[in-house]
Amino acid sequence: MRISLLQQNPVVGDLRGNEQKIIRGIKKACKENPDLIVTSELALLGYPPRDLLLQKKFIEKSWQIAENIAAECRAAPPVLLGLAQRNESDVGRPLFNVAALVNNGEVNYCFRKTLLPTYDVFDEDRYFEPAHDAQILHLQNQSIGISICEDIWNDRDFWNRRRYQTDPIEDMAAQGADLIINISASPFTVGKQQIREKMLGSIASKYHIPLVYVNQVGGNDDLIFDGRSCVFDSSGSLIARAKSFQEDILTSDLSSTESNRISPADFTPESEIWRALVLGTRDYVHKTGFTSVLLGLSGGIDSALVAAIATEALGKDHVLGILMPSPYSSTGSIDDASALVANLGIQSKTLPITPIMDAYDMLLRQEFARYSKDLTEENLQARIRGTLLMALSNKFGSLLLTPGNKSEVSVGYCTLYGDMCGAIGVISDVPKSMVYRIARWLNDQNQREMIPQPILTKVPSAELRSCQTDQDTLPPYDLLDEILYHHVELHESPEEIVARGYPKMTTFQALHMVKVAEFKRRQAAPGFKVTDRAFGTGWRMPIAAKEWYID
Amino acid sequence: MRISLLQQNPVVGDLRGNEQKIIRGIKKACKENPDLIVTSELALLGYPPRDLLLQKKFIEKSWQIAENIAAECRAAPPVLLGLAQRNESDVGRPLFNVAALVNNGEVNYCFRKTLLPTYDVFDEDRYFEPAHDAQILHLQNQSIGISICEDIWNDRDFWNRRRYQTDPIEDMAAQGADLIINISASPFTVGKQQIREKMLGSIASKYHIPLVYVNQVGGNDDLIFDGRSCVFDSSGSLIARAKSFQEDILTSDLSSTESNRISPADFTPESEIWRALVLGTRDYVHKTGFTSVLLGLSGGIDSALVAAIATEALGKDHVLGILMPSPYSSTGSIDDASALVANLGIQSKTLPITPIMDAYDMLLRQEFARYSKDLTEENLQARIRGTLLMALSNKFGSLLLTPGNKSEVSVGYCTLYGDMCGAIGVISDVPKSMVYRIARWLNDQNQREMIPQPILTKVPSAELRSCQTDQDTLPPYDLLDEILYHHVELHESPEEIVARGYPKMTTFQALHMVKVAEFKRRQAAPGFKVTDRAFGTGWRMPIAAKEWYID
Repeated sequence: MRISLLQQNPVVGDLRGNEQKIIRGIKKACKENPDLIVTSELALLGYPPRDLLLQKKFIEKSWQIAENIAAECRAAPPVLLGLAQRNESDVGRPLFNVAALVNNGEVNYCFRKTLLPTYDVFDEDRYFEPAHDAQILHLQNQSIGISICEDIWNDRDFWNRRRYQTDPIEDMAAQGADLIINISASPFTVGKQQIREKMLGSIASKYHIPLVYVNQVGGNDDLIFDGRSCVFDSSGSLIARAKSFQEDILTSDLSSTESNRISPADFTPESEIWRALVLGTRDYVHKTGFTSVLLGLSGGIDSALVAAIATEALGKDHVLGILMPSPYSSTGSIDDASALVANLGIQSKTLPITPIMDAYDMLLRQEFARYSKDLTEENLQARIRGTLLMALSNKFGSLLLTPGNKSEVSVGYCTLYGDMCGAIGVISDVPKSMVYRIARWLNDQNQREMIPQPILTKVPSAELRSCQTDQDTLPPYDLLDEILYHHVELHESPEEIVARGYPKMTTFQALHMVKVAEFKRRQAAPGFKVTDRAFGTGWRMPIAAKEWYID
Repeated sequence: MRISLLQQNPVVGDLRGNEQKIIRGIKKACKENPDLIVTSELALLGYPPRDLLLQKKFIEKSWQIAENIAAECRAAPPVLLGLAQRNESDVGRPLFNVAALVNNGEVNYCFRKTLLPTYDVFDEDRYFEPAHDAQILHLQNQSIGISICEDIWNDRDFWNRRRYQTDPIEDMAAQGADLIINISASPFTVGKQQIREKMLGSIASKYHIPLVYVNQVGGNDDLIFDGRSCVFDSSGSLIARAKSFQEDILTSDLSSTESNRISPADFTPESEIWRALVLGTRDYVHKTGFTSVLLGLSGGIDSALVAAIATEALGKDHVLGILMPSPYSSTGSIDDASALVANLGIQSKTLPITPIMDAYDMLLRQEFARYSKDLTEENLQARIRGTLLMALSNKFGSLLLTPGNKSEVSVGYCTLYGDMCGAIGVISDVPKSMVYRIARWLNDQNQREMIPQPILTKVPSAELRSCQTDQDTLPPYDLLDEILYHHVELHESPEEIVARGYPKMTTFQALHMVKVAEFKRRQAAPGFKVTDRAFGTGWRMPIAAKEWYID
């Protein structure tokens, strides 16, 4: 059996655009004579459609368009198309998440998703009613188990702890499936493809049946889909893999020994994250209707890396760097930012903020007369810069990028309405130590200095007062990032982290900073998810709460 | 049987504080000789604890504290205590949402929640595994069905459409329950208590058994809990009701005809919303560790109402109004803001922003030379004001309140990092037309002018350019609010709204504005929920998406 995998990049809600993309994909795949063509999960709607799913007419219209696709592709072999199907019963959630069999010019049977994830960024129980029995397609004397994304992530032999009572794959195998197909929209995180391939291979070999996995590609808001759809034979060996971080149509023959294509998977963490963020940035900018971006360049590592990502994503003519020196800016920072601009070949403008600082100072002098200088004055500088950047963004119609990294967003070492301004947090899920690793990797890859050397070696500073360094306020980043990993990704309490051997005072202080910065993060721009737990949709914390571990 | 209902206001995560509150409540209730004492849902943790539930040690510690409570209240009658219990199995979600029977100095049996809501603001499937059989407590020869919040919201006779396949109350009744207890943390929305009482009464009468409903009270972030716990006899008649919007302990006798207390429920929408927002504001400010607030006073209705709410919540000495006139501010606005300050008896400061506008203008003049004036300059004024307010907030340690109403937040008639600055959107779920109704009601209630009359009667204007009015950009608010209601609360598409008779152009334009303002709302402060669908945790929309209804 020959199966074509449509690894496509849909726009959420763009039913007409996605329709055309799917039709083009089907027609192109047909040239390779497949027996079956398979899209990714909810391909026509774009994943995740989120609360658009609650709009009844959205579902109705998507259904009409699915029928158009069927009519348009009447001559094609059967297609499994990712759709949302209305639940006609008067009980249960409004929809089913389905793979619709499109065949002979019609939308025929719908295979339903059984396992509906509600952890991390997922909310599927909000919309979907589960299937209650094995979903099997009979085609060409084969029994094909049709599973959707999460359905395949509950294997009792692969996982120590399972999230669901049932295992739809086990049920399909028990009913004699000769092949398992999984249509997915599985968001990228660093290292996830290795786990996917290990898990999928182990399931194929466990049941001695081939397994076909189709993933979405592209960025949709905070989520980046990495593609890398793949096929395993009945021994669990990888026999085909689609491209990573780009659209691809992969046709694979399960029954012959002819060579299938195995595109490189690119498992280096620095490379994976770089490519994910480039794709995420390009898609976020274009899918929101923009073509160009701007960002403040402080001369520090974060804005430097974000500028490099944007340049790769959009082209150097679509990135504008803004230097906004204050009396606390070192000449080194201005030089470093200028060197970066030259290295990347982007445009820049310089807007010194001192006159505006003076104007605020004059207006507030009397009110603040009885108070000493504190964070207020530092925040004020950051907010003046944020206001200038937003004015340029408004006037030029360019999207503002937010440069904060995960370490500073975690502990709130950033100013709300200041350096937190912007449409998308490009590296807000990248810890500071990884920011450095990616910057060094980038220079190595290009065999020339993209990120100027001084930016990689100098002591990090916000330069909001004289002689300030990040480490006046924060522990060393390598230590901080380890503590944060245990807390943010592994949900550990300060006591547990201290028990691992981390210093007590530092751990408690860091976690206290995480707690009190919650109000800032709640108002942060969306940020691209690259770790197992990013702030945003996968981090749902109360604000007006007490630290439970402090008596 | 005599049952005491502890209607308390917990702080989320404050295990020690909540422990003391519960112990005090139990000891106070004991004076009324109850046979059983009942708390609200997750009372020890505070509802909603959200992702704190993923921290294993939080659950462990809460369990130790529950044991402390048991030991401390050894002499008390049995207590049903709202807790989270660890799921010891290696399958399923990590926890159960339970009512623990605390008796004889120990935490004994745990009654588990069956129905786990995932609609609107709820995410319970993220944390909890459901019960699979009827949860019945045998006490004093009575079979008492123990249900938790959502468990009671799935009655087939009351609802046209049910969300769940099972009905735990039906199962309890089938197993011979003599009484149903429901422990809840049911957030306030306008008119919800009438529905609750109608539904609870109909369930009691349907099964001919009494029903006891205990609700949480107090504000936790965006959610406000209104209390109004109540008791129904087996005919479905209301026989007792606790206070609204405040803590209360209500002891009710189910078996005697003695008079139980029925506190007034206060069903007037204006009054309900006012009291909810006063409670929400007081709790948000105090639970985040602040005592005082400040806000910008534009002379408009929104900031006037928010100032009045804050004054009622915190006292006039804890509210500071900031007037920030620009060349576009009318003398009327300054006079109206000053009259409001006098009416409320609060302090105020005036900071004219013209010099700062000039400083930005000077710096940007060259960059903007080839461009005409547009929204950039309007946004800039709003951002200067936001920056000033944040400077005062930082320096004085006062929380900044955000004044935007639901109509403007819906269509994006507000400036991100400008008038959207602040910690909490006090009226961000109150449509403009309701803002006026509440302001008029407030003046009537007080039999004097709280909100100055000109503010109620003048044409609304943002005063960001000459001769501007809101209706230059927006449809009349009464019309806009109806269109928004159909879209935001009822999920209707523009076609459906037009089919109801609303003007086509206006409807499509309004909904287009809602769509493109998504990026602003994503970065908005949390806002108090008072309608069936508020922006924030109950509104989960993509940003980089296309409007599906436009071909």
